[in-house]
Amino acid sequence: MTISRGPQAFPRSEYLRRLAAVKFEMARREIDTLIVSDQDNITYMTGYTARSGYVPQALLVRAAEEEPTFILRRCDAPAAIYQCFMDRTKIVAYPEALIADHKRDGYDAVVDHIVEAGLANHRIGVELYSLPAKSMEKFKSRLPRATLVDFTNAVAWIRIVKSDLEIAVMREAAAIADAAIMRGAEVIRPGVSEADASAEIMAAQIRGVNGKPGTDVYGTIMLCASPRTGTCHIPWTEDVFRVGSQVNLEVGGTRHGYCAGLMRTYSIGAPSDRLRGVHEIQVEGLEAALGAVRPGATCSDVANAFYRTIEKQGLTKESRCGYAHGIGWVEPTASLRDGDMTELKPNMTFHLMLGNWIDEDFGYTISETFRVSDTGVDVLTTMPRKIFEI
Amino acid sequence: MTISRGPQAFPRSEYLRRLAAVKFEMARREIDTLIVSDQDNITYMTGYTARSGYVPQALLVRAAEEEPTFILRRCDAPAAIYQCFMDRTKIVAYPEALIADHKRDGYDAVVDHIVEAGLANHRIGVELYSLPAKSMEKFKSRLPRATLVDFTNAVAWIRIVKSDLEIAVMREAAAIADAAIMRGAEVIRPGVSEADASAEIMAAQIRGVNGKPGTDVYGTIMLCASPRTGTCHIPWTEDVFRVGSQVNLEVGGTRHGYCAGLMRTYSIGAPSDRLRGVHEIQVEGLEAALGAVRPGATCSDVANAFYRTIEKQGLTKESRCGYAHGIGWVEPTASLRDGDMTELKPNMTFHLMLGNWIDEDFGYTISETFRVSDTGVDVLTTMPRKIFEI
Repeated sequence: MTISRGPQAFPRSEYLRRLAAVKFEMARREIDTLIVSDQDNITYMTGYTARSGYVPQALLVRAAEEEPTFILRRCDAPAAIYQCFMDRTKIVAYPEALIADHKRDGYDAVVDHIVEAGLANHRIGVELYSLPAKSMEKFKSRLPRATLVDFTNAVAWIRIVKSDLEIAVMREAAAIADAAIMRGAEVIRPGVSEADASAEIMAAQIRGVNGKPGTDVYGTIMLCASPRTGTCHIPWTEDVFRVGSQVNLEVGGTRHGYCAGLMRTYSIGAPSDRLRGVHEIQVEGLEAALGAVRPGATCSDVANAFYRTIEKQGLTKESRCGYAHGIGWVEPTASLRDGDMTELKPNMTFHLMLGNWIDEDFGYTISETFRVSDTGVDVLTTMPRKIFEI
Repeated sequence: MTISRGPQAFPRSEYLRRLAAVKFEMARREIDTLIVSDQDNITYMTGYTARSGYVPQALLVRAAEEEPTFILRRCDAPAAIYQCFMDRTKIVAYPEALIADHKRDGYDAVVDHIVEAGLANHRIGVELYSLPAKSMEKFKSRLPRATLVDFTNAVAWIRIVKSDLEIAVMREAAAIADAAIMRGAEVIRPGVSEADASAEIMAAQIRGVNGKPGTDVYGTIMLCASPRTGTCHIPWTEDVFRVGSQVNLEVGGTRHGYCAGLMRTYSIGAPSDRLRGVHEIQVEGLEAALGAVRPGATCSDVANAFYRTIEKQGLTKESRCGYAHGIGWVEPTASLRDGDMTELKPNMTFHLMLGNWIDEDFGYTISETFRVSDTGVDVLTTMPRKIFEI
């Protein structure tokens, strides 16, 4: 009749370490209760990765309690018991009657819990990017004596430096991304449809490598082929590859919520002079950026190493050069962009994303997922930095 | 240097019809400007399905303008020009410098556009479930003379009745869901890993059928096998199927943003008496629910036809029996639940979702995607209503 805790990606001590860091930040901001509505932060503090976040659910972190309390929909409670590191008494299921009730929802259950725990007049942290405006109105009206304190992105800033255990999982994700790029080289062929190739590449992301399957496909794939190489976020189309087609591919491995992104460019037949020229400049820029990575350097330093290198050869890139990378793909903290003075520390991880959408109808993609090492850079993805010629 | 509009899933007249309905609702609420931040509503009114909504983007619908204006990130503008029905002058790109700037973001570009258009003192509709609390604060502070009117879910209520053109696309999506369930019957085998089977099922969702590939995989897949049949939203695990395993599978076809969901249950070896018993009751309930579908009946009628049928045989189901279904999976409007008095109209579409997670360690899944026809029901998915025995 009951479900047991399943295999865990991390030991209990790892979750307690993460929670200690979050509680330290809570203490610094003088709050003793935090409502975590960001799904990636919930994954970080519990191990939960099931896809139930399309209805309200929240993690309550309290200074006075070792384990957080996860409040979620009744039918999702078994998945939480199975996946989370906490004791099952910390999984609080709210009734299904709150789903699709246009007056009350799961956030009412969260408020009820806070009131019953005697916290209604406390300083309570809330995350204002993951919380809908409508739900914030509810918190304000139903918790009039509480002081709601903006805790937006604070947990994400803690997540930015990974533990060795997290790095090991991201390395597994990176190996999957490698395999998906290799699969692309096998299946992108003239006459093949973009969808059929995407099916094979997506399957490679799920099968994984070395007995470590992808555990989800958060990043889906982005396969932007001629005449769409100037676009970046169309998964694929109903078109068929042709001789002369260029294919920009972004893939990602996923392990236990952690992602590793990777981009490469393919050419069916010899690349055009323009494509080859851009490729050479971009790879030089990529290597300059990686060469600038070391503890103490800033995100801005890394980005400008890239920008300066390509600008010398007449190429520019308008978008940022990447972002903090881990749970749920883009972490909303540091970016590899001019002016981001975030100082690099060992075990920070980034997707060095050098996709360059130069014209409406021409772009080029290359990227790596890396971690900052003790002395420089450790690139987790390992594919050759070439145009994959088909 | 420029990209042209790509193949369109719907004719221009279809988008103008949808926009006319939205503008009518705007007029009823006395607003002449609407900020659409819900990604599914953007798809509905433009055809845009690229996956760029992780950064701010918004559609501006104005009573005085035939076509809406889509404000999005510079690097995503080519995809919008390619996918949207509007003239390219209606695609407004904001600079990449607004990405990951911790002070200003894409919503500042939206506000700037509103101010420059002379609308800053108008009544402006906003969608409060898709808008982060943080962004609503920005709208309030930067548009102090505007009256911000809650337009939450109003567009979704318009979307609930589909056109024949939309039904045709959903039928294509349903055929893909059918194919994915059939693929499940081929690949679920003792000794096969859940991930390897999921890779094949996902690939089937992308390859599609009849020359109509899946255009995305919004719903991913949910493959919950013994001992996790009491969970509903874990995509798959690292486990291997065994003789005696039960597998609950939820798949979805996706065409141009429109989904069709489908669930079936598999058994490796003969099903247990309990599973067979639950299956028979649930199928009887499913048929009773479908039998209750007709214009003029309510969502509550359909749900209660199911609940009453299974309760007669000692089975209950706590969760709702389904939801309005179309763009982006769950539509946030009508639910097949007790007390939902939404009156069924021809061409409303639902996922009749009868997943029943009875115990923590035992559940059963079956579902169909249907439309309300002129006289009764038209079930879009077509798989046999059986336990798939392997």
